[in-house]
Amino acid sequence: VNNLPRAVAWVDGALRLLDQTRLPHTEAYLDCHNIESVYEAIATMRVRGAPAIGIAGAYGMLLPFRDTHEPGTDNITVRTVRDIHVSVENDRGQAEVSLIELERRADYLVGARPTAVNLSWAVNRMLAHARELPNVDVPKLLEEARRIHAEDAAACRAIGEAGAPFVKAHPRLLTHCNAGSLAVSEFGTALAPIYVAHSQGNRIHVFVDETRPLLQGSRLTAWELQRAGVDLTVIADNMAAHLMSTGRIDAVIVGADRVAANGDVANKIGTLNLAILCKHFGLPFYVACPWSTIDPATATGSEISIEKRSSEELTHIMGVPISPPDIDVFNPAFDVTPAELVSSIITERGVVTPPYPPQLTCGQ
Amino acid sequence: VNNLPRAVAWVDGALRLLDQTRLPHTEAYLDCHNIESVYEAIATMRVRGAPAIGIAGAYGMLLPFRDTHEPGTDNITVRTVRDIHVSVENDRGQAEVSLIELERRADYLVGARPTAVNLSWAVNRMLAHARELPNVDVPKLLEEARRIHAEDAAACRAIGEAGAPFVKAHPRLLTHCNAGSLAVSEFGTALAPIYVAHSQGNRIHVFVDETRPLLQGSRLTAWELQRAGVDLTVIADNMAAHLMSTGRIDAVIVGADRVAANGDVANKIGTLNLAILCKHFGLPFYVACPWSTIDPATATGSEISIEKRSSEELTHIMGVPISPPDIDVFNPAFDVTPAELVSSIITERGVVTPPYPPQLTCGQ
Repeated sequence: VNNLPRAVAWVDGALRLLDQTRLPHTEAYLDCHNIESVYEAIATMRVRGAPAIGIAGAYGMLLPFRDTHEPGTDNITVRTVRDIHVSVENDRGQAEVSLIELERRADYLVGARPTAVNLSWAVNRMLAHARELPNVDVPKLLEEARRIHAEDAAACRAIGEAGAPFVKAHPRLLTHCNAGSLAVSEFGTALAPIYVAHSQGNRIHVFVDETRPLLQGSRLTAWELQRAGVDLTVIADNMAAHLMSTGRIDAVIVGADRVAANGDVANKIGTLNLAILCKHFGLPFYVACPWSTIDPATATGSEISIEKRSSEELTHIMGVPISPPDIDVFNPAFDVTPAELVSSIITERGVVTPPYPPQLTCGQ
Repeated sequence: VNNLPRAVAWVDGALRLLDQTRLPHTEAYLDCHNIESVYEAIATMRVRGAPAIGIAGAYGMLLPFRDTHEPGTDNITVRTVRDIHVSVENDRGQAEVSLIELERRADYLVGARPTAVNLSWAVNRMLAHARELPNVDVPKLLEEARRIHAEDAAACRAIGEAGAPFVKAHPRLLTHCNAGSLAVSEFGTALAPIYVAHSQGNRIHVFVDETRPLLQGSRLTAWELQRAGVDLTVIADNMAAHLMSTGRIDAVIVGADRVAANGDVANKIGTLNLAILCKHFGLPFYVACPWSTIDPATATGSEISIEKRSSEELTHIMGVPISPPDIDVFNPAFDVTPAELVSSIITERGVVTPPYPPQLTCGQ
């Protein structure tokens, strides 16, 4: 598949992010030299999509707090606490941070998007790696972040391979939000089976929910599918039922922000809606995600706290006010789809179908 | 109920419309002196809502084509065809139009919004009245338009009375699009039971679907409910399932653009979606509309042609582009909800429930 964008990269000691809030009009990259700018990029969704947030968080663990900035050190924190010390290199030289400092960074970063399990998973993996190293040094810590990144890319390809048969059998698909290259590495999750099937010469047509409030569908999924040469049609989120009732859609495929141990799926607000429509019309509803999205610590979807985002996302679009002033708004970022509405979960370890086997939750 | 706006009025020989495309930011009124400006106002949804379109169409029948404009006659067509002649007065004097001309106006106006049955119903009623008058004169033709308007206002009040018990029993309601004062006269249709229950001192809370693409919910329904002092919360169209699954909604109430003889309901795109969600969660789904919305000439919903609107409504919001250029878009204005998903239809003649009696379709 040609022309897939790189949402996250580590370049010259900084975290380079494609600023997704400026797409599709401007393809701008942001270099983060401190952890606050990583936090800001995650919280405001300049980088978004569960796996991409995890990768950004892993690299972000290597970056210092701005408030400890010392001129001339390029934002690298210099500390002399008596704790395990971790060297952090950048292109200008070397500095040290303590494990306590790394834990502080982890706590801080996780708060940027509390629902995304990949974020806490990735920063905890970085912490665990730091704790286990006999002699912690920069190359090894950076290597771990690169490993998380590379594993994610490999997982996306494997998800694509595992899901491609479903796409070939149901070539007119509807997707919601963006679970593509921009959300992950390379192929994405929900879009990975589409890219694999497309690259094998199958004619696929993707209906793209615009995905209010932040329009990840019309802004991001449409942009990356168009770049990759996949046929697509953008619709408003309320049109899926009409499309299904008139026989224009074969299946729905979405990503996931967190999957509970019982198979309940937290994903972008509007996902539950599509799952219920699929049940009504007898269509398959697929969830594609890396295995790391499955959280054994969350027994069921009811335990997942749903992030509420700002009113402005609904009262304004691209900065333009659309509703009267002083209006009450409810803006949950996610909803929870019960496991019984999910036809299959497509992962890099294979396809699982409810009722789920115990190994769904013990393979981490 | 205080502060309800007047969407349609006949003032000094012109049709005065509240320009709903400029709400909620600007409350501007448009005076139409010719039929093209009425057509433009209907097609671009400056005036919208099935009954309001019908009323605008009835008054619009009194206005001449611009292309026959003669200076000094204030856009009143002057013709001398040997046919039945109808005098059309305005504040500057008197002129005549033929029945053929009236038929031409009717054909022209109906094309502005082909799905809205009230529009063709109203212009045909004006035509029928003109044909039956022994001596056609202006006051009588204008009287007929005023009668249509007054009957609509009375129907809205009666719909409100008929539906208020449902609202009291289900005080946390979700509505879609705008079927309120702005769509009709006075109380509206879907909002009429809410206004009546509110005016009787009941505490009602209305969740308002923003209603993409044209945002009639966040722009119009939120505006008029706020003016009337009814508690409301705006949500994106894809949030209803989440609200229902977390027990925050008691019922859905919407208007209708056309009801087929079997009870299938054509209404704003997204309505079918809500009806399916109500079925899934065991919630009542109410349709409120004047009896004139029921079309005995349409046997089932499958006969209703669904208006496709322009791509720009989806690729732009308030003039701001949100998707990549050259993107394919599907933009149906309506969908059809099967009768079996409708709990009740609330009309000025009472409440009917499927399976519908024969009198549903023979009372026109």
